[in-house]
Formats: sequence, C-alpha cells, structure tokens
Amino acid sequence: MGATTIDRTAPTDHPILDVLAARWSPRAYDAVTPIDEDKLANALEAARWSPSANNVQPWKFIVARRGTAEHAAISETLAGFNAAWAPSAAVLIVAVAIVADADGNENPVALYDLGQSVAHLSVQAHADGLVVHQMTGFSPAAVAERFSLPDGERPFTVIALGELGDIDALPEATREREVAPRVRKPLSETLIANA
Amino acid sequence: MGATTIDRTAPTDHPILDVLAARWSPRAYDAVTPIDEDKLANALEAARWSPSANNVQPWKFIVARRGTAEHAAISETLAGFNAAWAPSAAVLIVAVAIVADADGNENPVALYDLGQSVAHLSVQAHADGLVVHQMTGFSPAAVAERFSLPDGERPFTVIALGELGDIDALPEATREREVAPRVRKPLSETLIANA
Repeated sequence: MGATTIDRTAPTDHPILDVLAARWSPRAYDAVTPIDEDKLANALEAARWSPSANNVQPWKFIVARRGTAEHAAISETLAGFNAAWAPSAAVLIVAVAIVADADGNENPVALYDLGQSVAHLSVQAHADGLVVHQMTGFSPAAVAERFSLPDGERPFTVIALGELGDIDALPEATREREVAPRVRKPLSETLIANA
Repeated sequence: MGATTIDRTAPTDHPILDVLAARWSPRAYDAVTPIDEDKLANALEAARWSPSANNVQPWKFIVARRGTAEHAAISETLAGFNAAWAPSAAVLIVAVAIVADADGNENPVALYDLGQSVAHLSVQAHADGLVVHQMTGFSPAAVAERFSLPDGERPFTVIALGELGDIDALPEATREREVAPRVRKPLSETLIANA
C-alpha cells in the first residue's frame, strides 16, 4: 500500500511549480500505513510559517491519527459521502479559525488567513509525497462540542492527510470522479481588469 | 535594481520547502523594473489551479501594472502606511472574493478559498524570484466603486507584486520592520489536540 501512483498533473496554460500542478484532492486513501511523523511535522510547520494580517496567525488545528478516539470522533462528524472515504486517511486534521479573541473582538480576516495556512500545509504535504483533501462537509457544531472549543474558535474544514490508496478499489461512482479530467475556468473569466 | 538580495529564511523547527521558508512580505519594491510578464502569468496560473469547495473557484482579480490609470486608482485606495510603499510595486492586484452568485446565494467558503488561491499565487511568484505582500489596509468600497463591481464581488486584499527593491532606501522605521527577526507562535500553542 502507499505505492499507488497516478498522474493527475493539471493541464496548465503557463508553467507552474510541479508541486502546485500535481497537487490534487483524492478520495482514495491508504487505510493501513501509519502517518510518517516527520512529514506530518513538516506539513504543520509549513502552515505555521504562512503569512497573516498583522502576523496574528488566527488558526488552530486538531490533529488526529487513525486508531485514536479523536480520529473516530472527527469521522463521526463527516457528512454523507465524506464519511464513506475520509476515515481511511492516516490523519484527520480539523482546521479551526480564531474568528474572535477572548474579549469578543472579531477578526474579519481569519477565514482568509486560515485558507492560506492550509494551502501552505497542503503544498508541503504534496511535496513530501502525501495527499490532502479538504472538506467543508462536516458538522462544525459537533466538533466544537466534542473538543470544547470556545466561542471564538470556529472549525472550518476537515483535512484528510495520508498516502494515496488504491483508486481501483473505490466504488465505481467515486472512482469516476477520481480520474475525471481536471478543469478550471479560463483565466480570462477571472480577470476583472488586466491593465 | 531588482538585484537586491537579503536572506529572510524562516528559522523553522522542521524542514519545509525552500520557497515556503524563504517567502516573506517585504515593503521595499523596485520602482523601476517592469513586471516580467511570464512570471506574472505563472503566478496567476498558480492561483487558477488552487483547490476550492466543489471547484467553484470563487475568486477574481484586478491586475494593474505600474503606470496605468488602474494602478494609480488602486494606490489611491490604500490606507496610511501602505500608501507610502506599495505604489512602487510593478503590479498591484486586487483579490476579489465571489461571496454570492447572481441570485444572491451566499458562498460561506469564498474568503477561505480566496486565501488559498492567493497563497498559491504567492508561492509561485516567490519561486520565480518575485516578492509579494498582501494588504487588507485599503478601501474595498472605493475599489468596488471604481471597478463597478456587483454586490456579490468583494475586494478583500490588495497584493503588491514585483521585484525586491533597496531595503536601505526605506525610511528608518520601515527599514527596521523589514529586517526584524521573523517570528511565529510555537506549534504547541496552535494544536488543540495532537492525538
């Protein structure tokens, strides 16, 4: 296990870093191999050094390895389809935005900065040969209750992290999604002005 | 110009990609050299291939090269300190979140996904030898009016992109910030659980 390879490199119009072009979000996770602790530490370190407004670093993480009560608890909060494949991942990480401080002062940039931090985490993980899939389909309220989060800490995504598993072992409908062409809007649709 | 170099590599506790460790957010921009168009295209292409919930890609960009009316207009929306240094950058990019579609249906993940997209942009730019500094200190309302943005499109950050300039030419207070040690919270403060 963990030896499955598939080329999912994006058909880019301009050359970008291999790690950015080859990064994708699989649903086939190796359900046996434990996480490589060094690679997990590297991914979290990359998240740590992400930029944030005024260097506030408005992010926290719940890290849970497969086999722990915490991994099982996070798995139980996953919605529908995610609950079918994501629990196989060696690690589930809840990305938590610190949307307000202890005095209730809101940070309007927290979600944006959290997204940046998780992007850095996922780029590092892919560079180290792991795969990452972020999910919004879970119950933030259930996570907040299970981990006794204060009001200002908002669970925002659950990240499946681990080694790629056997795509051919997925149910057929899932497998089809997994190998479908990678697509994005043309850049021209995204540019409001290009002056 | 454009030849200034300074080692701002983060003092990481675990090894991460050079591009992630060396990325930083300077305020000294080369005010003369035009943008390398290939590198700008690569950065925007990296943003394009960022992941997003359901592949909605809820981001748009206003790209303005120094010397254009658009660059001047964006510069005028910058707040206080940012207005002093950022207009030197060869390119100013407004990162716009598509927070609602034409029917008014809100996308609660738009800011998070926009953050990811800009993270990919900045990683690519740094890999190509450019520097990036994101700012929230500007007037979104002024940008929205100037570029006639619809209600669902929310300007969220302005990105200064270009070549590094002469740090020693900055005003002293700015220069001190520029060379101050790079710091982050220890990872232990960021982990709610590590199971």
